[in-house]
Order: sequence, then structure tokens, then C-alpha cells
Amino acid sequence: MWADLLPVGRMGSGGFRRFAWTAADMACREWFRGEAATRGMDVDTDRNGNLWAWLGPPGPDSFVTGSHLDSVPGGGAYDGPLGVVSGFAAIDALRARGCTPKRPIAVVAFTDEEGARFGVACLGSRLSTGAADPARTLALTDSDGTRLDEAMSAQGHDPVHVGADPGALQRIGVFVELHVEQGRALVDLGAPIGLATAIWPHGRWRYDFAGEGNHAGTTALADRRDPMLSYAMTVLAARKQARLAGALATFGKVTVDPGGTNAIAAGVTAWLDSRAPDEATLTDLVTAIAAQATERAGRDGVRLSVTAESETPLVDFPAGQLDWAATALGDPPRLATGAGHDAGVLARAGVPTAMLFVRNPTGVSHSPAEHADQDDCLAGVAALTELMVRHAC
Amino acid sequence: MWADLLPVGRMGSGGFRRFAWTAADMACREWFRGEAATRGMDVDTDRNGNLWAWLGPPGPDSFVTGSHLDSVPGGGAYDGPLGVVSGFAAIDALRARGCTPKRPIAVVAFTDEEGARFGVACLGSRLSTGAADPARTLALTDSDGTRLDEAMSAQGHDPVHVGADPGALQRIGVFVELHVEQGRALVDLGAPIGLATAIWPHGRWRYDFAGEGNHAGTTALADRRDPMLSYAMTVLAARKQARLAGALATFGKVTVDPGGTNAIAAGVTAWLDSRAPDEATLTDLVTAIAAQATERAGRDGVRLSVTAESETPLVDFPAGQLDWAATALGDPPRLATGAGHDAGVLARAGVPTAMLFVRNPTGVSHSPAEHADQDDCLAGVAALTELMVRHAC
Repeated sequence: MWADLLPVGRMGSGGFRRFAWTAADMACREWFRGEAATRGMDVDTDRNGNLWAWLGPPGPDSFVTGSHLDSVPGGGAYDGPLGVVSGFAAIDALRARGCTPKRPIAVVAFTDEEGARFGVACLGSRLSTGAADPARTLALTDSDGTRLDEAMSAQGHDPVHVGADPGALQRIGVFVELHVEQGRALVDLGAPIGLATAIWPHGRWRYDFAGEGNHAGTTALADRRDPMLSYAMTVLAARKQARLAGALATFGKVTVDPGGTNAIAAGVTAWLDSRAPDEATLTDLVTAIAAQATERAGRDGVRLSVTAESETPLVDFPAGQLDWAATALGDPPRLATGAGHDAGVLARAGVPTAMLFVRNPTGVSHSPAEHADQDDCLAGVAALTELMVRHAC
Repeated sequence: MWADLLPVGRMGSGGFRRFAWTAADMACREWFRGEAATRGMDVDTDRNGNLWAWLGPPGPDSFVTGSHLDSVPGGGAYDGPLGVVSGFAAIDALRARGCTPKRPIAVVAFTDEEGARFGVACLGSRLSTGAADPARTLALTDSDGTRLDEAMSAQGHDPVHVGADPGALQRIGVFVELHVEQGRALVDLGAPIGLATAIWPHGRWRYDFAGEGNHAGTTALADRRDPMLSYAMTVLAARKQARLAGALATFGKVTVDPGGTNAIAAGVTAWLDSRAPDEATLTDLVTAIAAQATERAGRDGVRLSVTAESETPLVDFPAGQLDWAATALGDPPRLATGAGHDAGVLARAGVPTAMLFVRNPTGVSHSPAEHADQDDCLAGVAALTELMVRHAC
């Protein structure tokens, strides 16, 4: 099952590039349909492009598990696909245990979880829960200027039906997302799996620094309005303020206009990703970073505008499902995470949801070096199978 | 003449994008041939792709003037083209004065002066003087991976003959390059034109920072090896060290791998452009910047390699031509510049060379805001005409 999926969207670096509604995404979907067919499961594509493979007829109080198949640029093999592969593997294990499900079971692959192409994460689940506005979402453009609705149409998905999909969500009795851990907490705790308690509030802010393009070889330092200087100070300020706040702040994407070696930049656009244990800390942190950036930009003769591109509040996973899963699995460690997930979007919409993490020996994620040991993956499948059996059999 | 050239390679921003061996470059060359034909001048394309428009048969002790037609990304209208346009305008003025040249006159457009596409400046003049190795130069690639020899072939120029061209240079009795000033020295001096004394030593250094790609939302700050931090400190260190040295240092181009909003960068590559009044100052400056960058990278868990991509020593324009031009033009101000020029490459190769600057009211260059007033442009043409008449008539 893994071996068939691995070549899809693989880059020379060993990392993956599986952006939503690209050929790589379509190849992942084809793989999903093949795995479902092998198990005699019917596949629905819902109005937002999420894939559902059903064991038994779709219906209420179903056990749903899954994750996503898309990746960040240069992402690893596990982030997303491990949850989908484990879902199918749990179905095999359930059958091996001789269980005949009394309730429907589905494996789901949500569309465009990473937001790598259109800049907004968890689009498939956000659209289905109504958290994302269809018209605004369909008008999002990728870096080539292609609109989301055009990208969908090009792959044969009609965007006219995109939007909230309560019917699809009401069938869910419990949703369990299994995901590779994206830090090293389970390593330190010596546990192969853990349960998510919460997702930190987080967001993305775009920093547009506008200076004055000029010749790098002839413009006196005193005559410059160089936005690269303001950006550089902002990167360092973000790190320092995050450290002081016990939170996270990262600049991982920056573009320069015009971007010539011998040209002082006219403009620098950069994206701040920030996360914190609670909303007040996050607000204070991003306010402090923006204030320091604005002050420095003023000294550099640079205009700065800061735009919030997305802001996601704290998600607490529901206590009922958390305690149910903890009891079933012998009380594994519980941990909060800074990463957004479709499970968080569903939990915020009131869907009964739990989330399992599988240990990541290095903690590395969103990188080709992302990894999980086979024994830990099997422990994840066993845990998922146990929850599936308890709910459906 | 200007009006015909202006639309070529023009971007939405008003800036220009005329990279060597692109369709925009070919359109500029077509314009050059048209201007030459209008004046009854024959056009040669030499082995390196430089264009020569001859008034009278090519021969020894000729008066040659000109500059280049290519641009940096988002460059202005004057950098390069002003020298070529003024060359043709000076020929018109020479004829209006009733002069019948006793020596040949040529207007030249050197290929790929900016180095915006293949990363090395003054390729046309460097190849002709033998300062650039043909095999290494032809193997240079642009950002799409296209090699220079492929780019030449695609535009119908056979790269097999590329290399030193002493025959073309030996015809030059004196070469005068007219160029818009790229700073504000002539504004402060209240003079429409000036004469170049020297070109500061300068170079480009590539900084490759290699860290560890990881998830921006889940990786503890202490576990990160984030090359963006090392880069940011280097930008600020370069500025500070340049200020202390009375020199220039600029980071105007940076690329990030993978460049995702929610991914800590695995790698950052950035280009340092640095220039100083003398070679010892430049060496000390780039050494100090590299040392600070390396120290910071070490603290960030990041590996840094610094590669010199080009280094150009000090050029003093020859005293004979400088004094000759100064006498002819009533002793205009003399100034050194931090910008490289084809005239500098020729002067270093022993070609008798002088260089004229035309006042730039804002000092802005390599930007759509680059400008020269019409009266100052006409003063430049008048000066060029005077030198042309003194040498050729």
C-alpha cells in the first residue's frame, strides 16, 4: 500500500510536492480509489472534493477515520498519508479479528489540508463545516494566478456545489484522525502513541515591506530605503519575542522585488507563522512583533503593512471522545500541538472527534527527513483498530 | 528614437525586463539595426553577440561610443540605452555640424552587461577582452536551467566562435561610454555631466545557509536549525560593517528552500553585493561579514558556505583619455563610481577609454524611477559630439 503511493509527487530531494488539484493530487486520489476497491469499499467524492471510502452503506453513527494526502513543498511521506494508510490497514485488521461491523465505517481523505497551493489550510474540512466562505475560497489564487475554482474544474470537479455539507458530517458518529507527531514529545515520554488534547491557536500574517529599488553599487547607504533591512530585523525580533512568550514564530517564506543581486530591493513580502498555548499570548506576541517591525521600518524609510491571512482560535478536543479513547487504549500520554488539522476543524464544528499521534523519532516534520518507525506505525494501526472495533462492532 | 525603444520589455510596474538572449533583447537589437539603417550605418554582430554600427568602413583608430541595451529585472529606461541613443544622436549632431569624418565612427551595444540572466556582469565585453573564459561562460545557466550557449543558439547566434576578439578591439582609437549617473554626486555638484576617474573594486558572493527543514507549528525553538535567522543577522551585519568601512554591502536576492509559510526553511541562499573605494577595504569588509555570518550560523546549528561568484579589481580610467576629454569639455567634475561598466572592462584590457556620466536628479537607478532631465541628456549628447568631432573630424 505504501509502496504504491511513495512515487507520487516525489521530488529529487526525496521530499514530496503534492499540491491540491494538481496531477500529483489526482494520482493520490487514484491510489485511494484503488485501495478502497481492493477492500470492496465504495468511494464518494463530496461537494468539496473530499474522498470517502465506505465499508457498508453510508449512514448515521459511522466510525470515520482518515487524514489528507496533499503535502507542503518538500514535505515528508507521513504527514497526512499515514492517517489514510492506517485507516485502510485498520480495516484489514478489523476483518482479521473476524468483526462484522454493526455500524458504517469510512476512510476519508480531506482535500488541501496543507494550504500549500492557495495559502489557506484545511480547505476541504473548512468548506464542509461552513468555516470557509465558498465564494471567497473559490476566488483564492495560487502563485501562478490560477483560481481555485479553475483548478477544480481543470481536474473535473465542478466548483458550483462547493460549500457547507452538513449531510456528510451528520453521518459521523466519531471521527478519529491518526497523524505522525510533528515534535518530539512522545520520544521524551517513551510512548509509541499519544492522544491530542488541544490545538494551539495559530495564524499567518503577511508582512509587506515597501522601500525604494535602487542600484546596489552606487547608492550611498544614507540614501537607501532598503526593505531587506527591516525584514531582517523582523525575523530576529519574531524569534526573540516568541522565546520570551513561550510560543512559536517563524518566517519560512519570503519574496523580493525585483530580486536582483545588484539591486537594492524595492519590496520584500514575508509570511509570519505564529502559534501559542492560548489566544491572549498569541495576540500579544503578534502585536509585539508587528510593533518592532513597524518601528524599524520607520527608521529604514520603509512602509510596512501587516495583513492577517488566517487566524485559527484554540481547539480543545471534546472530553467525551478523549476519555473514551484513553480508556480504550490504556491511557496513553496526552499532548497539545501547534499544528492545525482537519480533526481540529471538525471538533470546532461540534463533530465528535479524537486524534491519535504516532511517535516521530526525530520530531522532524514538513521535511523529507520526517519519519516514524514501523513498530510505532503498527501500534498506531492497532490503536485505530481498537477504537474502530469498540465503536462499530 | 526613444519612443520606439520604450515599449520593449516593459513590465506592468513601468520597469523593464530586458534579459540577454530573450525576445526582449532581440527586439532591442532590431531597434538598433533600424536606427543604424536610418543613418546609413552597416551593422556587424561580433563573435560574442555585441552589435557594432559603423559610419564608414570599420578600421583602425576609430571613435567608438555606446553602452548596452539589456536591463536588470525592473530596471529603468536610461541605464544602458541612454549611451546607445546618445551615440546615434551624436552622429546626427556631427552631420549637422557639417563634419566629414576622417576616421571611422561606430556605435556599439555590448551584450549582457547587467548579468541579470546568467549571474555574471559585462559578459559581452569580458568575452571580447579575454577576461571571461569562453567554455566556463557558455556553461552558465539561468534560473530555468538554460545554458548560455543554448540561449544564444535559440536566438540564432552560433556560440562556437565565442571568445577573445582582439581584432574588434584593435580598431578602437578611443572608446567613450556615456551613462546615466547612478548616484547623486552631480546633483550635489550642480553639473549636468561628469567624467569617470575609477570604478570601485566590487564583487558578488553567494551565501548558502543549510539548516533543517521542519514544521513551523510544532518544532520547539530550541530544537530548530533555522537558516533564516542566520541570514537575517548577516543582512544586518553586512550593513553595519559597510557603514564602518565607508563602503557598500547589499543583499538584494534571496531564495528559500522549501519556502512554505508553515515550514522552517531547510536552506537559504542569498547573494552579497559589495563594493569599496580600494581593494584592501573590500577584502576586509567581505571577510568581516563572512566571519560574523559563520559565527551566527554556528550558534543556529546551520552550515554556511560562502562562494565568490565574481570579483572585479579597481579600474582607473587612463589618464591620457581622461585629460583629453576634460580639456575638450571644459573640465567637468570628475568622480569615481561603484558600478561596473563595459568601459571599465575595456580600460582594464588596455583599450583607450573614457566615460561620461549624465546627472540623475534623484540618484535612483536599477528602478523604474531612474531618470535624467532632457536638458542634461542633450548636454550629454553635446559632450559626446564634441569628443567625436575632436577625434574623427
